[in-house]
Amino acid sequence: MTERRHRLVLATHNEHKVHELEQILGDLVDDLGLEIVSAAAFPDVPETPETEVTFVGNARLKAAALASATGLPAVADDSGLAVDVLGGSPGVFSARWSGSTSGAAATRHQRDAANLALLLEQVSDVPDAHRGAAFRCAAVLVMPDGREEIAEGEVRGHLIRAPRGTNGFGYDPAFVPEGDNRTLAEYSDAEKNAISHRGRAFRELSPRLADALRPLG
Amino acid sequence: MTERRHRLVLATHNEHKVHELEQILGDLVDDLGLEIVSAAAFPDVPETPETEVTFVGNARLKAAALASATGLPAVADDSGLAVDVLGGSPGVFSARWSGSTSGAAATRHQRDAANLALLLEQVSDVPDAHRGAAFRCAAVLVMPDGREEIAEGEVRGHLIRAPRGTNGFGYDPAFVPEGDNRTLAEYSDAEKNAISHRGRAFRELSPRLADALRPLG
Repeated sequence: MTERRHRLVLATHNEHKVHELEQILGDLVDDLGLEIVSAAAFPDVPETPETEVTFVGNARLKAAALASATGLPAVADDSGLAVDVLGGSPGVFSARWSGSTSGAAATRHQRDAANLALLLEQVSDVPDAHRGAAFRCAAVLVMPDGREEIAEGEVRGHLIRAPRGTNGFGYDPAFVPEGDNRTLAEYSDAEKNAISHRGRAFRELSPRLADALRPLG
Repeated sequence: MTERRHRLVLATHNEHKVHELEQILGDLVDDLGLEIVSAAAFPDVPETPETEVTFVGNARLKAAALASATGLPAVADDSGLAVDVLGGSPGVFSARWSGSTSGAAATRHQRDAANLALLLEQVSDVPDAHRGAAFRCAAVLVMPDGREEIAEGEVRGHLIRAPRGTNGFGYDPAFVPEGDNRTLAEYSDAEKNAISHRGRAFRELSPRLADALRPLG
């Protein structure tokens, strides 16, 4: 039995997201002998600012910077909520929708709450028939030689008026996926991975990730 | 010389907007013997909430309600700023973009300032090449018999980072029309009417307004 190890770096400092990606990739992790490490393992590599105006652009920017700095295959994703009646906004601005009103010193939880409250106020007069929205995600793999693979995922649903649920983060408590009446914040982690925009993007990326890594093994 | 008078009601409580429309319609006012009155002349007619999700939808809603309540030809407009990178937002939400953070009791000037500050924060990381935007306006005439005429106007430009100028209102201080380097808040009223989204929409509506009113004279 050959001992193969592929290291893959994920552009996040959040270990929970590493674990989430391992769950989404499933058998591929064992199959490839894949070790997923977070960007936190490379403290000298500065975080890439998200200056692009599309999910793919931001994910590519982050993955390319990390692959270049580490010499490892790198995966990054960018995601957000696209509200129909706002023409796809907040989109790439989802995490900074309320601007500095939530303050640079605010916790992630406080920023999430401020962003969600602002969005629901903005669309408070919008009738139920026009409250459609989608969570979208772009996942990009960049190889050390510069080759890249892009995958996108989406989950459609609608915005409710009064947030419910305590799992998840961001806009999850106000978003009800199509065909359900629970919010994403009322899903378990496993349920959410099965239908979420991130889950779908990473599963779409998965076979191409395998094809790209195998020849290196 | 026949003494003809056509009364037209404009869906606003702002007498400045009545004067602005008279200026935009120009000779047509004398030609038709047109008397433009504001909705303030009908204190018993409740203000129509803007519950539609397009400029045309809101303008039609307001004009139809006013024509029905007064028995007069009614004109309404709805307008806002459409930022490219936000997929056309704030759009119909331009006047309430910062939600209740600016407070229901706030003055128009305070709400304007809060909306502008929030928008500029949201796009603060967006590079110059992606800061395109347009002011858009829909103007709708509804006749007492229900016939309607719709006109739209647009002025394209881009958002700057630091607001300039004291004329105008709303997002004017951050918007530079194409081919200029002044903001709309640095234009005189007459200069602004000549190129603005509202000026263009009303001038497009003007001949159709004349055609609709003349047979009544």
